[in-house]
Amino acid sequence: MRAEIIAVGSEMLTPLKVDTNSLFITGRLNEIGLDVAAKTVVGDDRALLADVVRQALARAEVVLLTGGLGPTADDVTREAVADALGLPLDEDAAIVQRLEQRFGRRGLTMPANNRKQALVPRGAVIVPNEKGTAPGLVMARDGRLVVLLPGPPRELEPMVEHVVREHLAAFAGPFRLFRRVLRTTGRSESQVDALVQPIYARWTSWPTPIQTTILASPGQIELHLAVRAADASQAQQVLDAATQEIASALGPTLFAVGDRRLEEVVGELLRAQGLTIATAESCTGGLLASRLTDVAGSSDYVERGVVCYSNRAKADLLGVPEATLGEHGAVSEPVAVAMARGIRERAGTDLGVGITGIAGPGGGSAAKPVGTVVLALAWADGERVQTSWFPGERDQVKFFSSQAALDMVRRRLLGV
Amino acid sequence: MRAEIIAVGSEMLTPLKVDTNSLFITGRLNEIGLDVAAKTVVGDDRALLADVVRQALARAEVVLLTGGLGPTADDVTREAVADALGLPLDEDAAIVQRLEQRFGRRGLTMPANNRKQALVPRGAVIVPNEKGTAPGLVMARDGRLVVLLPGPPRELEPMVEHVVREHLAAFAGPFRLFRRVLRTTGRSESQVDALVQPIYARWTSWPTPIQTTILASPGQIELHLAVRAADASQAQQVLDAATQEIASALGPTLFAVGDRRLEEVVGELLRAQGLTIATAESCTGGLLASRLTDVAGSSDYVERGVVCYSNRAKADLLGVPEATLGEHGAVSEPVAVAMARGIRERAGTDLGVGITGIAGPGGGSAAKPVGTVVLALAWADGERVQTSWFPGERDQVKFFSSQAALDMVRRRLLGV
Repeated sequence: MRAEIIAVGSEMLTPLKVDTNSLFITGRLNEIGLDVAAKTVVGDDRALLADVVRQALARAEVVLLTGGLGPTADDVTREAVADALGLPLDEDAAIVQRLEQRFGRRGLTMPANNRKQALVPRGAVIVPNEKGTAPGLVMARDGRLVVLLPGPPRELEPMVEHVVREHLAAFAGPFRLFRRVLRTTGRSESQVDALVQPIYARWTSWPTPIQTTILASPGQIELHLAVRAADASQAQQVLDAATQEIASALGPTLFAVGDRRLEEVVGELLRAQGLTIATAESCTGGLLASRLTDVAGSSDYVERGVVCYSNRAKADLLGVPEATLGEHGAVSEPVAVAMARGIRERAGTDLGVGITGIAGPGGGSAAKPVGTVVLALAWADGERVQTSWFPGERDQVKFFSSQAALDMVRRRLLGV
Repeated sequence: MRAEIIAVGSEMLTPLKVDTNSLFITGRLNEIGLDVAAKTVVGDDRALLADVVRQALARAEVVLLTGGLGPTADDVTREAVADALGLPLDEDAAIVQRLEQRFGRRGLTMPANNRKQALVPRGAVIVPNEKGTAPGLVMARDGRLVVLLPGPPRELEPMVEHVVREHLAAFAGPFRLFRRVLRTTGRSESQVDALVQPIYARWTSWPTPIQTTILASPGQIELHLAVRAADASQAQQVLDAATQEIASALGPTLFAVGDRRLEEVVGELLRAQGLTIATAESCTGGLLASRLTDVAGSSDYVERGVVCYSNRAKADLLGVPEATLGEHGAVSEPVAVAMARGIRERAGTDLGVGITGIAGPGGGSAAKPVGTVVLALAWADGERVQTSWFPGERDQVKFFSSQAALDMVRRRLLGV
């Protein structure tokens, strides 16, 4: 069964703003087995919008509109949909009363233009809005459903849940979409694809076929598995089996099943093992510490971090010997190890991380080009060090470096 | 003159991926005076896409499609547009030759399916693609233009520039859109709007009217001014006058004219005044240092930073007296000042910043709720300290705090 989404609002036709509500809506529609066949963004133009609604209704069983339900003259969604369906608009007394009460509770009189929000195409079912003034509307026409919801995400999202539960789920039938996300780091998209493509190619011929999408974001590749089934426990079994196959193909590069971030995974491991950590950063400039401390409760295992942008700071704060800096240069394995050891000893933590590199755009050389980064991890009786090269602009080099450092810690904690 | 943009690709109809090419394209079309009236995303479905193209052509003078020009069976944009216009597809010998040469240069034979990329609706003008295999196409029909461009941004963007310059600019006529962005921090969207709305309301009646959009992002409000004019120097004069009016209304909260980030503005001021800086962070966990060092060349003025998540680290690295910590608590003005002074003295820099606060979700109390943040700035013979409360989740509190700290430095450097 096919759905189309129409987002209404001239601000989404500027170079500044994209419609993101449709991502949330698509997720919910997919879960109940509805595919989204097209998405349209239209400005606050009644005639054009009515035209677009008519065309969508000619193609899809469900048409869901967001935005343009406010009280101002710009807001034309109600009127345009009434035009498209050839329905008159009636004022709904119950909505007027609720609006008046809503303003009354804040000691205000309802402005006259808010009355517009009580207009309802004849026969529409009203969807309550707990977070704002614009009610939603659901209309049936020739075995098709038209849904109108307000644009602000805070109002929209609970109303989508309500409409899915009360109107769309039964309409869409018994099949549901079950998803699972697997996250990996340390390999490129094409490397991951080469490893898993032979596996998921077979899944399409399983009795309950699995659909797979690979999504690359900086320093991380995600596999999205989706199964369409009427039976939840059967779907979970199929996804469990698939996850197991992928996990053994990917090995330790798989860092999460589900949507946890790498810094959360590292934090959970540190907490579970009762260990503490401190960081010494040069080229990442504090990004590693900032990511570690993005996790709630990270003060339990992050003791301190230092950002050493000068050689003097490396000597003062970490005890990196000037001779080591002079002999090998600031971006070198001996310096990274001295940084990791130095911060670990001074902080009195179980683990110490050292990062030094050239984030660019300046500072590169033939021997050590921009993007050269050395990572070191020190623990009580040992250390690990690696030199890498990361592509891209300054902020990308910083991010890739912090990602590789987090992954180095993760692998040490897992012993892989 | 109206344009519509159609993005082709089933991946943009999932909950995972949104069409962002249209932002870039809209910016370029707006500059030459073309308004975008609607945007549609369609999957890899030839019949549906042909339908959508026909409908767009009935409404708009320019229809620009992106994506679906690859060599696989999924790629149907050429075919769908030929269907919509009723044109036959001919193989273009020059394109075949270019494709063969492109593969030949890498020592490869062109795969058979790439031949598909040489199909051209009869009469179309070919747009060269310097970065990939899919050429673009421009077709005229009944005084309207249809443009087909590939989806990958790296290939698309230079081709948009080419099409705008060679085909659309003359078609759209002499009027251009001139933009200016003004960025402020330290006030809410409604505060900024209340200050500037009376000003920009008048602008709409100027001989060359200015259109204004307010855009809020965390810790920052942007005013986008746009003028439609045939004469560039006249447009710049109008924008200069408007910028001056806004600047005097906003006072020192205006931190940039243009799209520079706050950390860049602070970096430029430090560099111009020949000053250095060091940071001591608790609740921001390194985010301030990371933002300062996001700027290329920041090693010239950032000497070091420390992240003190424990009281011991505050004592060790900054010399914050234990008595001060015990008497006032870690989140207090005396501690923030001691942090700022401590890092400044130890780093030997001109400026020192101290940040301490409660990012949450834990650690709040009635007296110091989650979101309480104390910022201090120390210089040779003085200091400034302020206690603020920031709303939102942990990552928002961190970001707002770093933004307020950067702004504190900016205001000190400007003496405002």
